[in-house]
Amino acid sequence: MIAERIEALKAEMRARKVDMYIVPTSDFHESEYVGDYFKARKYLTGFTGSAGTAVVTESETGLWVDGRYFIQAEKQLGQSPVVLYRMGEEGVPTVKEYVEKNLPEGGCLGFDGRVVNAKAGEDYGKIAEGKQGTVFVDEDLMGIIWKERPELPKNPVFILEEKYAGESTKSKLKRLREKMAEKGADVHILTSLYDIAWLFNIRGGDIDHVPVALSFAAITQQESFWFIQGEALDGSLLEYCSANKITILPYGEIYSYAAKIPEYETVLLDKNIVNYRIFHSLGENVKVVSEANPTELMKAIKNGTELSNIRNAHVKDGVAFTKFMFWLKKNIGKMEITEISASDYLEARRKEQDLFVDLSFDTISAYGANAAMMHYTATPDSNAKLKPEGFLLVDSGGHYLDGSTDITRTIALGTLTEEEKFHFTTVCRSNLNLAAAKFLYGCRGLNLDILSRGPLWNLGLDYKCGTGHGIGYLLNVHEGPNGFRWKVVPERGDSCVLEEGMVTTDEPGVYLEGRYGIRTENELICKKAEKNEYGQFMEFEAVTYAPIDLDAILPEEMTATERNLLNNYHKMVYDKISPFLEEEEREWLKGYTREI
Amino acid sequence: MIAERIEALKAEMRARKVDMYIVPTSDFHESEYVGDYFKARKYLTGFTGSAGTAVVTESETGLWVDGRYFIQAEKQLGQSPVVLYRMGEEGVPTVKEYVEKNLPEGGCLGFDGRVVNAKAGEDYGKIAEGKQGTVFVDEDLMGIIWKERPELPKNPVFILEEKYAGESTKSKLKRLREKMAEKGADVHILTSLYDIAWLFNIRGGDIDHVPVALSFAAITQQESFWFIQGEALDGSLLEYCSANKITILPYGEIYSYAAKIPEYETVLLDKNIVNYRIFHSLGENVKVVSEANPTELMKAIKNGTELSNIRNAHVKDGVAFTKFMFWLKKNIGKMEITEISASDYLEARRKEQDLFVDLSFDTISAYGANAAMMHYTATPDSNAKLKPEGFLLVDSGGHYLDGSTDITRTIALGTLTEEEKFHFTTVCRSNLNLAAAKFLYGCRGLNLDILSRGPLWNLGLDYKCGTGHGIGYLLNVHEGPNGFRWKVVPERGDSCVLEEGMVTTDEPGVYLEGRYGIRTENELICKKAEKNEYGQFMEFEAVTYAPIDLDAILPEEMTATERNLLNNYHKMVYDKISPFLEEEEREWLKGYTREI
Repeated sequence: MIAERIEALKAEMRARKVDMYIVPTSDFHESEYVGDYFKARKYLTGFTGSAGTAVVTESETGLWVDGRYFIQAEKQLGQSPVVLYRMGEEGVPTVKEYVEKNLPEGGCLGFDGRVVNAKAGEDYGKIAEGKQGTVFVDEDLMGIIWKERPELPKNPVFILEEKYAGESTKSKLKRLREKMAEKGADVHILTSLYDIAWLFNIRGGDIDHVPVALSFAAITQQESFWFIQGEALDGSLLEYCSANKITILPYGEIYSYAAKIPEYETVLLDKNIVNYRIFHSLGENVKVVSEANPTELMKAIKNGTELSNIRNAHVKDGVAFTKFMFWLKKNIGKMEITEISASDYLEARRKEQDLFVDLSFDTISAYGANAAMMHYTATPDSNAKLKPEGFLLVDSGGHYLDGSTDITRTIALGTLTEEEKFHFTTVCRSNLNLAAAKFLYGCRGLNLDILSRGPLWNLGLDYKCGTGHGIGYLLNVHEGPNGFRWKVVPERGDSCVLEEGMVTTDEPGVYLEGRYGIRTENELICKKAEKNEYGQFMEFEAVTYAPIDLDAILPEEMTATERNLLNNYHKMVYDKISPFLEEEEREWLKGYTREI
Repeated sequence: MIAERIEALKAEMRARKVDMYIVPTSDFHESEYVGDYFKARKYLTGFTGSAGTAVVTESETGLWVDGRYFIQAEKQLGQSPVVLYRMGEEGVPTVKEYVEKNLPEGGCLGFDGRVVNAKAGEDYGKIAEGKQGTVFVDEDLMGIIWKERPELPKNPVFILEEKYAGESTKSKLKRLREKMAEKGADVHILTSLYDIAWLFNIRGGDIDHVPVALSFAAITQQESFWFIQGEALDGSLLEYCSANKITILPYGEIYSYAAKIPEYETVLLDKNIVNYRIFHSLGENVKVVSEANPTELMKAIKNGTELSNIRNAHVKDGVAFTKFMFWLKKNIGKMEITEISASDYLEARRKEQDLFVDLSFDTISAYGANAAMMHYTATPDSNAKLKPEGFLLVDSGGHYLDGSTDITRTIALGTLTEEEKFHFTTVCRSNLNLAAAKFLYGCRGLNLDILSRGPLWNLGLDYKCGTGHGIGYLLNVHEGPNGFRWKVVPERGDSCVLEEGMVTTDEPGVYLEGRYGIRTENELICKKAEKNEYGQFMEFEAVTYAPIDLDAILPEEMTATERNLLNNYHKMVYDKISPFLEEEEREWLKGYTREI
């Protein structure tokens, strides 16, 4: 079947004299997660992972996947004609190196310009140019060969009321236009679905667990254009747009809009996000200023309303999690519980909460050795039965109208080894140390990362990821430009100066392959502390309210200061959560938030 | 007097229609400390600090100084007409911003092209160009108004034997030429006095406490040119140069050499160091690759011979310091001791040590409130008498043929307040925490700085400088590209990845204006720890051996872990130093390195 699809694609390529065709994993917006319509690479190769790029020539079809997916891709490719390229392994070329090497002189390099960002598109263009070749980007060959492709989603859009958003779209547009003026931009093309949703105070349902609406926006000093499938909008939305002077245009018209931007105007856009076809549509004499979208920083700095909503959402989420943890501790060993049934129970507790919208991502419920895989998702095949021993790691969260949550707790189901307790205690210390940081304004995550990572480094351990990420408000649970990471990774863009009102996760962990995984994740609001002759000091407020399992803590491995931090944290958890519990749960929580 | 000098300069400016004249603090080599010949800014403004820039216009003379010097500059400027600009404070323009703002349209901006680096020279040039103005750089106006200017130094040069340097100049030249080839450079112009001394394994005496020789170098794949005043070289040096195929040319000929570099050749140089006149002398069709000098990283990574020499030098230096501390503690209150007499006593102890060459910088011996000025130097006027109370801060070091040292201890002379002890204890914790860091290879100082600074930030305190700097081997006591600093300061270039063999100071402090200053400084060698699946771990070895005054420590303010670190450090100090002490001193040291 895979072979047939590849042959079909090659036939289309031959018909158009395309020598090489790239099929990446992306929507038209550089979204982190993509809907089914955009899973062309999966359709072509049979590989289902969330990231990967296929490159097709007459003689070979290659698939590039990263370290997370080597084993899965190997299995899924099976006997197919697709050749696996293991990214990052010695001697394995990157996609660009492969293209550079294998595109023939004078050859034609093709890809759908809508699923490649402008920056990458330009790079590919230069490779082709260097070989006196051409690019073919205006037709979607996968769209031609893909029988029964799902439709583009066009789920209903809803307005996020100002009591949730904290700022009107008019006010946001005003601030954005000020930034545009500073940069001398006549037009701002905004294609990030998260930023559009934030700017217009709307939410949708076009990506699983990411409540955004497929759309593009273009803003000038006078006008706002919103390119969106009309079916997604009901009467109230049309009224809302009219009231906010937002002109609605068809989703696909962004390209002709871009083409019609007058000569000598200046367009502000982010080449790392805007797709190549849009960029390519701009006239030759249009000046492009490529910078991060101003809305990225604006939406990361939560306003006062959002912050108090977020605190409230976390109380509800903490109640749901505490009820789940109580149930799990009470029933483990007494009834059959699996990774999936545990996660279902937790989901049910979240759904009971006021203003619940959706889970904020697929729950990771990972028992024992499964938790050593950082991005494990239980499937009916892998679904482990929980025993009254070892750890269950649960990384989960909810979207509420009053904010999104992302919490990880690792729960002792029974007997633990001393090593498990020692590692759990160290991860707890790591988490608390970062949360307790006080620092001068100007610090970035890379200045603070070692507070969390240091206790693990001292043991010769590490976790192969950042310590934390920014988190959206009823948007993508991963959001820039803030984060905690010791090395700058430019394409992640999560190393900004930490500003008052940013919310970042703090999630150190220990992952021992084939043995166990431990992670403790709280969200931290960045706040101002005192200002004095040394400058403006900043600090964090932890807003995740759920017990850190004392059954796994070795108090003697913590300093008095650290025990104090944990006791204060637990006191806060009890104060926030206990009013919403049943008597038996409250008694239980009292014990699990006791002073040590 | 200052007013007269400024008026004289303005007269020369008027005569040449120069609207603004910049007088930086620099020699022709961007050396940190400059010989008396180069102290034009001091001559002009009366401010004696080691860094600062004066800008003169008809209506105002401004002086820019950094945080270290705010207090000192205020005092020294007194009633003079010079306006103080506190660099880094809110609302204070940088020198460039000031020039940009105040240079009139079509105005003429002047400076001596030899005392401004190529990068800054270009920037100034652009500012002038942007105003349709001109630059005036080929005449040294300060040289005209400066009566009785000292001569250019030409002190004798000596060879640093391989048993001290650890690598021959031939081998160093070979490594340098490999780097040049990698970068496609035909010629490398090297003007950093430290790098030239390191490369040629020579030392001189042209800057107080920095044993370098005023000279330039140019290296091609075949030849090495050394531009130096002939009087500095004796017969053995001529022979040495000949044996190493180093051609000697007059110091001032670098400019004509640069002008004669053939068209289309590629020159490697560091625009941040090479002076603007050299850069300006290059032909239009010479290609410049501006990068850090390859020797900078090479010399920062000390070789095995250097490292064992350094350890040895520190034992001698620690013996000298311990004897001094013993004497001070014994005699304080019983005889008259002043800041200067204390520092003289310490100097005498250093001079007794084997292979001693010089102090590595002017000793800071600062009593009480004087120590709140980070870079205070006692003068006969300021020289405080020590009383049996409060703190004496001594920041000092020695140059030995087997390495250079830089150590700060703050010594309790008698009664202390609880607050003084608390701050001293916190500074000690800061110092120990950084020294105990274990981290993955790839970390920079900015990832680790908070380990030292954090305990002070927690109190709402800060020190307005880096936590530490690289240190040269019988060279400048401040050396890049390593350092500990939380914010990247590009022009300091001290934020490199920490490599095995680098030596960096660890010197947190508390400075309370008008009250007291505390600093504890050790040097740390960066070493490899274990390598495992997470990567190569790194750690530090403290090589400064002198007691941290237990009279000022509050053990109850330290965690058990921190007390342990201090006890281990003190045990090492005793083991290294005690064999070289008199009986009475040894007994004393035993007490001052006891377990707490």
